[in-house]
Amino acid sequence: MSVEGRQGRKPRADVQRNRAALLEAAQRHFLRDGVGASLEGVAKEAGVGPGTLYRHFPTREALLAAVLQTRSAELVARRAGIARLDDASERLRQWLRALEDYFSAFSGLPEPLMTAAREQNPDNPLTLPCDDLIATTEEYARAAQRAGHVRPSVKGYDLYLAAVWLAWTKGTGAHDEEALDRLRALIEVGYREQNDPE
Amino acid sequence: MSVEGRQGRKPRADVQRNRAALLEAAQRHFLRDGVGASLEGVAKEAGVGPGTLYRHFPTREALLAAVLQTRSAELVARRAGIARLDDASERLRQWLRALEDYFSAFSGLPEPLMTAAREQNPDNPLTLPCDDLIATTEEYARAAQRAGHVRPSVKGYDLYLAAVWLAWTKGTGAHDEEALDRLRALIEVGYREQNDPE
Repeated sequence: MSVEGRQGRKPRADVQRNRAALLEAAQRHFLRDGVGASLEGVAKEAGVGPGTLYRHFPTREALLAAVLQTRSAELVARRAGIARLDDASERLRQWLRALEDYFSAFSGLPEPLMTAAREQNPDNPLTLPCDDLIATTEEYARAAQRAGHVRPSVKGYDLYLAAVWLAWTKGTGAHDEEALDRLRALIEVGYREQNDPE
Repeated sequence: MSVEGRQGRKPRADVQRNRAALLEAAQRHFLRDGVGASLEGVAKEAGVGPGTLYRHFPTREALLAAVLQTRSAELVARRAGIARLDDASERLRQWLRALEDYFSAFSGLPEPLMTAAREQNPDNPLTLPCDDLIATTEEYARAAQRAGHVRPSVKGYDLYLAAVWLAWTKGTGAHDEEALDRLRALIEVGYREQNDPE
């Protein structure tokens, strides 16, 4: 199909404008109401009908994955900085904190993340981004194990789950920063090589 | 009011029969569908109208608290056995596992438990039972600290939250028993006195 094909210049620009407006509205609604925000409200604020929303994002997970994608620039930048650290232990520590912050973006986000981890369904739009984050966590955990910082029986996936937990706990709003710091210390003391009970 | 007062023998028996039928139906529905189970379905199965359900249990939390109450006999029995253990460290370990099992009763139970912990609202029917469980956790944690088994900076409440976490993670279905054992070890290594980094 030529560039002058069925989708001419004007309609294509409209399509992209609608998509951008939907992503922006969705981000605002997710921030305010959590991941269960009204999709009707999102379409309305973006100035499109529900049909247009569903053509762009056939499921809530698809919309959520696309919004997370737009937010991932910050995480990618942090990962780049973390990758340059010399100390494997510090790399792992900072990465777990970056994950926790990323997962805390919207209230209720940890649940669909856990569902994606459980199902391992390639059709779930959240599966691929999660797999990528889990792979990075495993890589940093293995490097920290080789450097003698992390107990051999700990898996990177366990630490990924711990980061999701901290985000979930933070999201419930039950806990001040001091309590969250104690929970982070609980995990960190828990994975240290020097504390290996075996 | 005399025993022959406004509520005669027959109506009172009806009221108690309805309550028992509602609790039994609710337990079945919560077990099958999680804490978000249809209340209409519960009333229907108990053979009463929605009005009767709401007179007995004005909110979902009230129904949930009452069902948990009927299930707490097992926890109370375990607590009695645990209280007789000589080793403060083992007492804490077994109590945390009993909590985790109790919180795993219904899918979705950890969320309203966290809400109760956050709000500390005496009108929330889940607040009182949770406070009791938190108090027991704090008591066992302090005893284990006095015996030199638990790091001084760890609070019983942190370990209560860790038990809720394990139940939540189990409830998402993402993890086999081996993974759960690793997460339990992560917490246990994390709170041990001998691993105190300070």
